[in-house]
Amino acid sequence: MKIASLGEDAVVAALTRGLPPGTNVILGVGDDCAVIGGARDRVWHLLKTDCVVEGVHFEKKEEPARIGWKALCRAVSDIAAMGGVPRHALITVAVARDVEMAWLRGLYAGLRKAARRFGVGIVGGETSRSPGPAFISVALTGEVERARCVTRGGGRAGDFLYVTGRLGGSLAGKHLDFTPRLAEARWLTGNFRIRAMMDISDGLAADLPRLARASGCSFGISEEKIPRNRGCSVAQALGDGEDFELLFAVRPDAAARIEAEWRAKFPRLPLTRVGALTRGGVRAEQKPKHCGFDHFA
Amino acid sequence: MKIASLGEDAVVAALTRGLPPGTNVILGVGDDCAVIGGARDRVWHLLKTDCVVEGVHFEKKEEPARIGWKALCRAVSDIAAMGGVPRHALITVAVARDVEMAWLRGLYAGLRKAARRFGVGIVGGETSRSPGPAFISVALTGEVERARCVTRGGGRAGDFLYVTGRLGGSLAGKHLDFTPRLAEARWLTGNFRIRAMMDISDGLAADLPRLARASGCSFGISEEKIPRNRGCSVAQALGDGEDFELLFAVRPDAAARIEAEWRAKFPRLPLTRVGALTRGGVRAEQKPKHCGFDHFA
Repeated sequence: MKIASLGEDAVVAALTRGLPPGTNVILGVGDDCAVIGGARDRVWHLLKTDCVVEGVHFEKKEEPARIGWKALCRAVSDIAAMGGVPRHALITVAVARDVEMAWLRGLYAGLRKAARRFGVGIVGGETSRSPGPAFISVALTGEVERARCVTRGGGRAGDFLYVTGRLGGSLAGKHLDFTPRLAEARWLTGNFRIRAMMDISDGLAADLPRLARASGCSFGISEEKIPRNRGCSVAQALGDGEDFELLFAVRPDAAARIEAEWRAKFPRLPLTRVGALTRGGVRAEQKPKHCGFDHFA
Repeated sequence: MKIASLGEDAVVAALTRGLPPGTNVILGVGDDCAVIGGARDRVWHLLKTDCVVEGVHFEKKEEPARIGWKALCRAVSDIAAMGGVPRHALITVAVARDVEMAWLRGLYAGLRKAARRFGVGIVGGETSRSPGPAFISVALTGEVERARCVTRGGGRAGDFLYVTGRLGGSLAGKHLDFTPRLAEARWLTGNFRIRAMMDISDGLAADLPRLARASGCSFGISEEKIPRNRGCSVAQALGDGEDFELLFAVRPDAAARIEAEWRAKFPRLPLTRVGALTRGGVRAEQKPKHCGFDHFA
């Protein structure tokens, strides 16, 4: 069977079922990051890998520094979504033999810029030849205080669902210039009890069901409330993907304080309540009309 | 300038110069692994990333389980070369949309087999579409007791150079079935003072100058002493690459005991003294006649 007919989530689930358990694994496959630590450790380690492929996540004509920025910031966004801070990155680059050194320097300029901005040390990597498209893979470690570690699975029926920023329109260029919501996630986890959180990478329509399913809930959203980037339809806001905004769930009685304090702390970034988790599970067919990004579809 | 005219080492050096320093970085770019830890920590963390690309490191016709085995074992070999033990892996796979699920299952069967064999937990990963060749990237963490951590840079003039196993002939298939020398490296670092070590991935002719340079030494080897796989010429033993044997340096007065105890402990795996580190630095033109593998050449 071709993987395209299965879809990404089913492929990952089939491949990762019954993997050998590692030592000290708090959380393995299936969340934004893996979480490693001992039950008594005050600080846990986060591990994340992510890749960008020419012709899929970027086009050759695009400025290499923006590609480097994107490659590292995607992984930073996942560390943020767990409530953590990024620490050390390893960069794997496979490119054609006839690539110009200037292109690689540009790529690394973007990687360095993102590393400096978010406090990441680039400590190693690997270069290889590619007979086809350029391929950049980032492995990123992070740390999170145990008390601040947020998964996708802690939501409860009745929790309010929030989205930071505005969604949609990533293909117009925003996907190369986004800012991972690291400061916002650290502030949220430091000041509130965030019950579940993830970053929106495949579009709200694909990612919200994942959070709801991990939390053992269903969900309801008001499509007209979804914060949209200028010129975007609801369908684009739900399905374009690569927003790298935060989606999180909190108890309803925390909502008023979060909304007020958010406005004071991040006056330029909207925080929008888009719906709530509800009783029952996510049924396979329950997706908003507008499907999110599926790598294999 | 095209990267092919610079060569891999020069490309990596140019790209990684002046990277932002991270916190707690004992060793960054330039050894088999990055080493992370505090000065007082008894155990340090190791980080490694490595990739295999279709058409470069494997061909499409090859059995996917052997490709998976190779992908993880390459990184295990680097952890071993630092004296450490592997812990947790993240797997990134980019494949064409029309890849058969059976191929991916085969790949993961090989990854699982290697993970079980070497005590690795596969805790996450990433799947993406590739418009070209298949690409598998492995990020692997490890741990090493501070006292057992061995770099490439601790050798001194006069140290004897040893190689485990036999070299050459990887292209005949061995490159898909090799065994990383994890047990051997742990035994060596647990029982002897190994001054410098690395794994031979690009061929002795390319890797030995790297160890010598990192140790501030030159080197002399006896080409006729190099242990060769059956049917291999000296040139193949020096240059084929993908041996994944250990190359290490020890003080001459430790040699007799290492050789005797090795024979008792690993009677089926040869250990061969191939030469010594010498005074002076490695000159750019000083390479054995038979060059090792350069990804961009």
